Amino acid sequence: MEKYAIGVDIGGTTVKLGVFDRLGQAVEKWEIPTIKEDQGSHILPDIAASIKDKLKSLELTEADILGVGVGAPGPVDADGTVYRAVNLGWDVFNIPQALRTYLNLPVKAANDANVAAFGEMWQGGGKGHANIVAVTLGTGVGGGIIVNGSILTGATGAGGEIGHIHIEDNEPEPCGCQNHGCLEQYASATGLVRLAGRRLARDQEPSVLRSCSELSAKAVWDAVKEKDRVAIQIAEQFGEYLGKGLAAVAAVANPEVFVIGGGVSKAGEILFDYIRPAYEKYVFQGCRNARFALATLGNDAGIFGAAGLIIF
Amino acid sequence: MEKYAIGVDIGGTTVKLGVFDRLGQAVEKWEIPTIKEDQGSHILPDIAASIKDKLKSLELTEADILGVGVGAPGPVDADGTVYRAVNLGWDVFNIPQALRTYLNLPVKAANDANVAAFGEMWQGGGKGHANIVAVTLGTGVGGGIIVNGSILTGATGAGGEIGHIHIEDNEPEPCGCQNHGCLEQYASATGLVRLAGRRLARDQEPSVLRSCSELSAKAVWDAVKEKDRVAIQIAEQFGEYLGKGLAAVAAVANPEVFVIGGGVSKAGEILFDYIRPAYEKYVFQGCRNARFALATLGNDAGIFGAAGLIIF
Repeated sequence: MEKYAIGVDIGGTTVKLGVFDRLGQAVEKWEIPTIKEDQGSHILPDIAASIKDKLKSLELTEADILGVGVGAPGPVDADGTVYRAVNLGWDVFNIPQALRTYLNLPVKAANDANVAAFGEMWQGGGKGHANIVAVTLGTGVGGGIIVNGSILTGATGAGGEIGHIHIEDNEPEPCGCQNHGCLEQYASATGLVRLAGRRLARDQEPSVLRSCSELSAKAVWDAVKEKDRVAIQIAEQFGEYLGKGLAAVAAVANPEVFVIGGGVSKAGEILFDYIRPAYEKYVFQGCRNARFALATLGNDAGIFGAAGLIIF
Repeated sequence: MEKYAIGVDIGGTTVKLGVFDRLGQAVEKWEIPTIKEDQGSHILPDIAASIKDKLKSLELTEADILGVGVGAPGPVDADGTVYRAVNLGWDVFNIPQALRTYLNLPVKAANDANVAAFGEMWQGGGKGHANIVAVTLGTGVGGGIIVNGSILTGATGAGGEIGHIHIEDNEPEPCGCQNHGCLEQYASATGLVRLAGRRLARDQEPSVLRSCSELSAKAVWDAVKEKDRVAIQIAEQFGEYLGKGLAAVAAVANPEVFVIGGGVSKAGEILFDYIRPAYEKYVFQGCRNARFALATLGNDAGIFGAAGLIIF
């Protein structure tokens, strides 16, 4: 008889859920609001109740379910203990143990970025590979590292925090982490816009970017595609930082493939034209053949990866 | 009845071997020469014959042995396939499979630096921890990364090649790998001597190092211990590079402890006084509490780690 796994991706606004079969096909996807009142104490009971309702409507019982995987926005150790998730109001506790008081199923939990990386390995841009580095170029630069088919969690759940690799000695502004010169300050969407602003302020060279009502990562890449010279220089600088950073990551984790996702990746494979030259310039020979691929699961990477924790 | 594992560390000149009990105690240690003639085809049969002799003299049989672990100087994948070991004349083949044609025992194999890191985790400076980064400061800078008690091998056996993280944009001389500005060019014994030579050439400030017949890493650290101002500046530069490099490693692998070994580490814990400030300056907050420890197994790390592949 067919068995299923449930993937749960807890965000600050909504909780995404999905029922997946063993082949990684989503049988059902839905969302519930994240109720953050009372230190987030309603979140897990709400998830359990929603899962029970869904199983009933699908005419499934707990016996049909292999288990529930959970991605949570905070540092989560290898046993599924979360060390504070400020966005949810959560303190320190063991997620599997807590969820199992409401739901009689095996539970595994991990950090949401790592779970999304796991999803991209299992069913997304890294499918077919067991050693991947997933890079999310969004508001910040997130990372998730999969080694031999397992999440690299690290000692304190900070494995794969590649956005905070120090990459520039001469950065006057602080990063969100308070350090100066983190990769995230240049390769995130906000970082790219900052690079653009600095470049435009440097001289008066004409550029379509000067007529943008609001500079954005998308505007920069659109201009690059139109062969705007200034935009190309900005993209080169972005690629220099990111390629150099990923070369450092490669010398540690030696992945088969880098899977690039997040808002900035909507520009498409043109990104790689700017990342690859710097990557190849700085990387250790033995890591030179790593592939670059786009993430394919978008916002569903989390529920895929969470279910994958159970099935893969 | 007590069972044992055999650790084998294949070097370019000698093969080190050891018989270990389950607690990680070395019952017997010995060496044989590495016969590299005929594309290294004698090495594995020699190892097998030597193990059989030793078991006989210890009045043990193959039934008493859990298995044989092997460290080899070249890229070795997760299945024990070596991809050329130029020092041995070896081409591509599967080490466990090959050794088992001479020896009826389970065999596991891995890269020698990774195996040494595994040894330091099991019985050395990283004992009690499952997430460590071992750093060997010798002729080059080697690395071995243990994640959750397993070697991080990577896609092409280049996991943990941290000596080739790009750390300096303004380096005129090439690294052995042909890139410019690799960590190894500053934090190895040769790198430290190069930093010292450059500093001494810069001006005429008096220093005990000026009267050295030959500059060496040991001479630099001895001078640091004597509070020689120029030597201290050199140590600070060394620490800046290494601390920055290890901060990048931490943002990827998030270890509990860095275990520092190799010739340069003979200077002792004074090293950490120079590495830690830079590490703490550049590292992601969540990785700040990583410990620094000295490697304790010296040249035996390889046989310990190789046996550990079987026992741990």
